[in-house]
Amino acid sequence: MTAVAGRLDRARAALAVADVEALLLGLGADLRYLTGYTAHALERLTLLVLSSDGPAVLVAPRLEAMAAAACAAATEGLVEVAAWEETQDPYALVASLLDTAAGAGGGPAPEGQRRLLVDAGLPARHLLALQRALGGRSFGLATEVLRDLRIVKTPDEIELLRRAAHAADRVVARIAAGPLVGRTEAEVSRQVRDLLIEEGHEEATFAIVAAGPDGASPHHGAGARRIGPGDPIVLDIGGTVQGYGSDITRMLWVTGADAAVPPSAEFLEAFELVRAANANATAAVRPGARCGDLDAIARTTIREGGFGDAFLHRLGHGIGLEGHEDPYLVAGNDEALRAGSAFSIEPGIYLEGRFGVRIEDIVVCGADGPDVLNEAPRELLVVPG
Amino acid sequence: MTAVAGRLDRARAALAVADVEALLLGLGADLRYLTGYTAHALERLTLLVLSSDGPAVLVAPRLEAMAAAACAAATEGLVEVAAWEETQDPYALVASLLDTAAGAGGGPAPEGQRRLLVDAGLPARHLLALQRALGGRSFGLATEVLRDLRIVKTPDEIELLRRAAHAADRVVARIAAGPLVGRTEAEVSRQVRDLLIEEGHEEATFAIVAAGPDGASPHHGAGARRIGPGDPIVLDIGGTVQGYGSDITRMLWVTGADAAVPPSAEFLEAFELVRAANANATAAVRPGARCGDLDAIARTTIREGGFGDAFLHRLGHGIGLEGHEDPYLVAGNDEALRAGSAFSIEPGIYLEGRFGVRIEDIVVCGADGPDVLNEAPRELLVVPG
Repeated sequence: MTAVAGRLDRARAALAVADVEALLLGLGADLRYLTGYTAHALERLTLLVLSSDGPAVLVAPRLEAMAAAACAAATEGLVEVAAWEETQDPYALVASLLDTAAGAGGGPAPEGQRRLLVDAGLPARHLLALQRALGGRSFGLATEVLRDLRIVKTPDEIELLRRAAHAADRVVARIAAGPLVGRTEAEVSRQVRDLLIEEGHEEATFAIVAAGPDGASPHHGAGARRIGPGDPIVLDIGGTVQGYGSDITRMLWVTGADAAVPPSAEFLEAFELVRAANANATAAVRPGARCGDLDAIARTTIREGGFGDAFLHRLGHGIGLEGHEDPYLVAGNDEALRAGSAFSIEPGIYLEGRFGVRIEDIVVCGADGPDVLNEAPRELLVVPG
Repeated sequence: MTAVAGRLDRARAALAVADVEALLLGLGADLRYLTGYTAHALERLTLLVLSSDGPAVLVAPRLEAMAAAACAAATEGLVEVAAWEETQDPYALVASLLDTAAGAGGGPAPEGQRRLLVDAGLPARHLLALQRALGGRSFGLATEVLRDLRIVKTPDEIELLRRAAHAADRVVARIAAGPLVGRTEAEVSRQVRDLLIEEGHEEATFAIVAAGPDGASPHHGAGARRIGPGDPIVLDIGGTVQGYGSDITRMLWVTGADAAVPPSAEFLEAFELVRAANANATAAVRPGARCGDLDAIARTTIREGGFGDAFLHRLGHGIGLEGHEDPYLVAGNDEALRAGSAFSIEPGIYLEGRFGVRIEDIVVCGADGPDVLNEAPRELLVVPG
């Protein structure tokens, strides 16, 4: 059985158990997971209609019907493509598919009992139109039935995550080889994107290059600041390999060619603390460990080290076909880790106006403990020029 | 009055007229239009809550509060930023803001009369949570009140569209200068993205390079096909300048250095027909012209030229802060063009397994007729090598 065939089977079984009429999945990770189909989301509706017993139909605009028909699930005969014309109402088409399926399943269920689940990214333009066209149903998120499937990665999926991680590792090494002095963050960021592709990603997703005080804003992208001697740099980069993401953060220190400027004692203290927080949380990874507890371990390390609340964000996020997905390593999340889950571990310290420090790896929860996918050294990467 | 101040005023007035309680705008073009705020959409909620008489509040994750506070509307004191912490429920925060506003406005309106409008791109994860947290309200699309504002571009906006168009024109010229033979579509596509930035875009949005039969799929991206002598190429590229998009399609013909391979008679016939369809539709642009009629003009040209239904898609789409926005030039759209609207005119002919032809310009509806922003020559661009 192929990967998508197995996933479609498990999704259908989960639908039956949860008493859900159908999944309605627009373009995005859920659709890619179940069918292999990927396309750029525009305003026209593409939607997989998957019920537990009826047929699986991929509704697609005529313009994209050829591409949809080439996806794994369609070529394997598991999903039928229904094309809609530019002047047709695609929501009415979805409604007729559901009514037909309900009819085939022994007559429609009583009003009020039918529940539909949509993918979390489905745009309001489609969701509101579906709610109108499918009156009497209630709507929820497909995450409800798909998260248990997607949260445990198969060996094939982990292999893709590992390939992506190693490709990102190589980009870190090439950037750390310099030169950096005199270049802007934006220029280096563009180079990162090119290198992500060169090293084997099919897409460069993000390339944060935050020098000096810019590093104090966790989501700083890359700006006009020119990198100079004495700058710490937060390098946080990622791309995708067959849809699966990389996401690594390493700290660089630029000394400048002649007059080496050493990091301040406070910066080094923060750096070592973040490194310890990363190591402590990683060491605690095992099946059954609570997501929120991992966050607490890293946060305690940083607080006890004297940097109080300077760790501004959660410890990490799951990763797979989405850059951020379940499980989230955040305070209050009592979920127990499962073997096969993949996530980031990325503690940080942010001191506004001065600097930021973050060290991030992608980690898989193995049967016996952590499997850290990134192999790039975690020490401070000193760049002479 | 600044641009965002004027837009916020007009949006509030439109809310009052339409009897809408508030706009709820997540990250995207509507939010950028009203506040100048732009950020990459992740899973955390960012939402502008704008009511007709209450305050305007930009709800943002703590992590991004600094960036949100730096947007034009916030620095001008027109919008207040409300940050939410990682462990807080942002939807409850939105609900409390609306209840406060309703209270300030003289007590809540009776249940069932309150209507909220969300941006068309708001992901289902947020919309369903808002629907739960804000029971008793009905939800619609913000397009209802914002489309009339956004569909008419100011001279400043048109200037940005023109700058973007001219930057894309220059990229077409540089690609048409070759060399192309022996390179893959994907390689040329990457060069297009680099050139879009070099020529002044802040972002390269798309770079379709479809050679030979690949051009017959209107949404083909760029693949592994190696470009050779005798290949026609559909080059459809675009990026953004301060958020405003470019989008141009030109046809290239690769002859090969020594043995020039001339286009077939049928290709040239299709090419001239598409060019005529583009010219005929463009010539009909004026205030009051119906969107659907423009589509019909181009379609009739192609059908009467003997290519039947080979023009697979609508004639065009509006363009501004979104790559595709109102107005849509599509059969059945009776909307009359307004002076200041900007849109693509992009007829095409697609012959599966053989070739495709498309010629696309961005056109502004001027007071007296068309203002064609693209200046790149529309003839077949012959590339020797």
